[in-house]
Amino acid sequence: LWNYTWRTGLGPYGEPLHGSMYRYLWSNGPKECLEFADYSFNEHFGKPISSYPPRPVLFDYIQGRVKKSDVRQHIRFNTAVRWVSYQPETRKFTMILDDLANNRTYAEEFDDLVVASAHFSTPNMPHFKGIENFPGTVMHAHDFRGADQFKGKDVLLIGSSYSAEDIGIQSYKHGARSVTISYRSRPLGMKWPEGMKELPLVTHFRNDVAHFSDGSKERFDAVIMCTGYQHKFPFLPDNLRLKTKNCLYPDGIYKGIVFNELPQLMYLGMQDQYFTFNMFDAQAWFARDVMMGKIELPGKEEREDDIKKWLDLNAACQTHDDEIDFQTNYVKELITLTDYPGFDLDAVAAMFKQWLRDKEEDILTYRDKTYTSVITGTESEKHHTPWIKEMDDSYERYLYHQNKVRA
Amino acid sequence: LWNYTWRTGLGPYGEPLHGSMYRYLWSNGPKECLEFADYSFNEHFGKPISSYPPRPVLFDYIQGRVKKSDVRQHIRFNTAVRWVSYQPETRKFTMILDDLANNRTYAEEFDDLVVASAHFSTPNMPHFKGIENFPGTVMHAHDFRGADQFKGKDVLLIGSSYSAEDIGIQSYKHGARSVTISYRSRPLGMKWPEGMKELPLVTHFRNDVAHFSDGSKERFDAVIMCTGYQHKFPFLPDNLRLKTKNCLYPDGIYKGIVFNELPQLMYLGMQDQYFTFNMFDAQAWFARDVMMGKIELPGKEEREDDIKKWLDLNAACQTHDDEIDFQTNYVKELITLTDYPGFDLDAVAAMFKQWLRDKEEDILTYRDKTYTSVITGTESEKHHTPWIKEMDDSYERYLYHQNKVRA
Repeated sequence: LWNYTWRTGLGPYGEPLHGSMYRYLWSNGPKECLEFADYSFNEHFGKPISSYPPRPVLFDYIQGRVKKSDVRQHIRFNTAVRWVSYQPETRKFTMILDDLANNRTYAEEFDDLVVASAHFSTPNMPHFKGIENFPGTVMHAHDFRGADQFKGKDVLLIGSSYSAEDIGIQSYKHGARSVTISYRSRPLGMKWPEGMKELPLVTHFRNDVAHFSDGSKERFDAVIMCTGYQHKFPFLPDNLRLKTKNCLYPDGIYKGIVFNELPQLMYLGMQDQYFTFNMFDAQAWFARDVMMGKIELPGKEEREDDIKKWLDLNAACQTHDDEIDFQTNYVKELITLTDYPGFDLDAVAAMFKQWLRDKEEDILTYRDKTYTSVITGTESEKHHTPWIKEMDDSYERYLYHQNKVRA
Repeated sequence: LWNYTWRTGLGPYGEPLHGSMYRYLWSNGPKECLEFADYSFNEHFGKPISSYPPRPVLFDYIQGRVKKSDVRQHIRFNTAVRWVSYQPETRKFTMILDDLANNRTYAEEFDDLVVASAHFSTPNMPHFKGIENFPGTVMHAHDFRGADQFKGKDVLLIGSSYSAEDIGIQSYKHGARSVTISYRSRPLGMKWPEGMKELPLVTHFRNDVAHFSDGSKERFDAVIMCTGYQHKFPFLPDNLRLKTKNCLYPDGIYKGIVFNELPQLMYLGMQDQYFTFNMFDAQAWFARDVMMGKIELPGKEEREDDIKKWLDLNAACQTHDDEIDFQTNYVKELITLTDYPGFDLDAVAAMFKQWLRDKEEDILTYRDKTYTSVITGTESEKHHTPWIKEMDDSYERYLYHQNKVRA
């Protein structure tokens, strides 16, 4: 998470690469919305920073908490899970593990299984007629590693969610000649700067020309598929797999966590997300308490009813604001059920809503806005350079240069 | 094999993509060296064609044989092997299979297991200091899908085997501004055209500048890692995995096929290759006969001695010509042990050696040379257009245009 790698496709041991991070990625939501309730930005940086830090700064923040808790000693790195089976007789999971550095496989038994392998890693890559003859670069957003290679290019992005929005303005910022976003159902509808626009869905390609459903056509140098990701659990038997599309409340998991068919199996972070770090935290706290017996689960039918209740609430959401309220209520409940430090979730919800307005107002300046921490009350700094002019996303420049300005 | 896909990284179901094929790939060895002994080029095309056909034509040839044998009905497509275990008590393999289209997993037992999952699919991607800050395209040869995107670019290829050689001249042919090949131990040593050259190993990158071990440095737009592949069998327990680097005779498999620790497990095509299709055939014939009891395997120690004999012969190889003779003798033996149709292997060995000379003489014209089939005696046609000027690799142009010339 938030760890950038230059690699694409497969990692050093030939395993599918998890990370979808890219150079020049800056937080696309206010950091005040994702602050850990037990480890504030203030505690880590010792001073106010801006509301939209670049990737290396967020990574450093996460690392700080990881170091403080010394959790790495409990993690088996470079170990792939090949297969999981569950034995009803013993009520245990057997995992086949692969020690990649030593090319060694072994089996091990566990009482509980927590799946936290994320769902923005395995690309969903639809086929468009003629794409196989497109002569330029074709990639999924997952493999996008920076906009430099698209300088002076005409870039087509297919999709209309966060990936398209952000890779679009990144490419614009770093000198793409033109950026076109192709949407299936609804345009993002931002006030795009000159050189950026939205068109309806691509119907097909003829060589380097994309044809769109409104009859228009255009030539491109590169196509980036911002077409989302799959929930993919190749290491699980199908009856233990969470089968869902990306949504705010996947069916089949109680409190968004506990696999209803087998409560010893829990999933973390499988929702689509407004809340991130703090929601993952609240989920982890809940899962921990279930495993430690501090939370007693109700029976299967009662859990089923609870899932149904949330699914209905989710289905009733009409607007993004509704969705924010929905997820706010979800996280609120988790926090009341655990000892995760409480914070003013309504204030965070209000920030999310304001963030949406900021983006609508100006997609190129929303990252210059500042917010106030609900954890510490700290007002964020204004970054020394407007985002659109800040071409260097390094930790050093972000923090060092800021010091200079303050001196 | 020889099936091109526009996808890179992961396939439609999120599985690692196997193919390393690219647009404008032409056979890089004479087709007369890889002709199926039981299905000649003549039988398939009904007329002579050139010695170095493009990818779609070779694919069509393979497809022809596949159709003739109607083998596809026996193949379970879109099915990933998740895990294999062997039960000594029952002497059976249990395979966990994943029906990707239906997201369904199931177990099934087998008496024998043949692993033919190839070894030019999982990239070996070493790290070079500073590569993470290289602003342009960075990819492994596995993900190279055509040279068009490198038109007008300065391209660096790291590695000095077939991938570097061929992606290098492809990029040159399709308009790269410059092509530099960086080698670790020995340069390829071809007579490169102007705009192509070889330099020793990259020591590190500073932004878009590569520094080389001879102290020189140069700016590049793109880096393509032609750094080879891993033998990777994630679905096997480590004690059944063939653990080897890419070489002409991997240790531990009798006759290059039978896993010595467990002869019910066989590997096909795990060698580095001069011979390809016909060697794979001979191996498959041998494996089939072992499974059907037509070939009786000697005891483990005798097999061990035989492996040792071949390893020693391999170790004694000094030149590429020696290697060709070594593999010729290996394939010869397999053919004598089975009923695979015999052919003049010494003549094929001579063609391989001539092919090496052709490349040394002129890397840009070797594909214009013609050879004579040892299966049918057919002299190949000269292609209507020299390879360096032939920008269209389509099946239609290759065969249709040829007809026009002949008419």
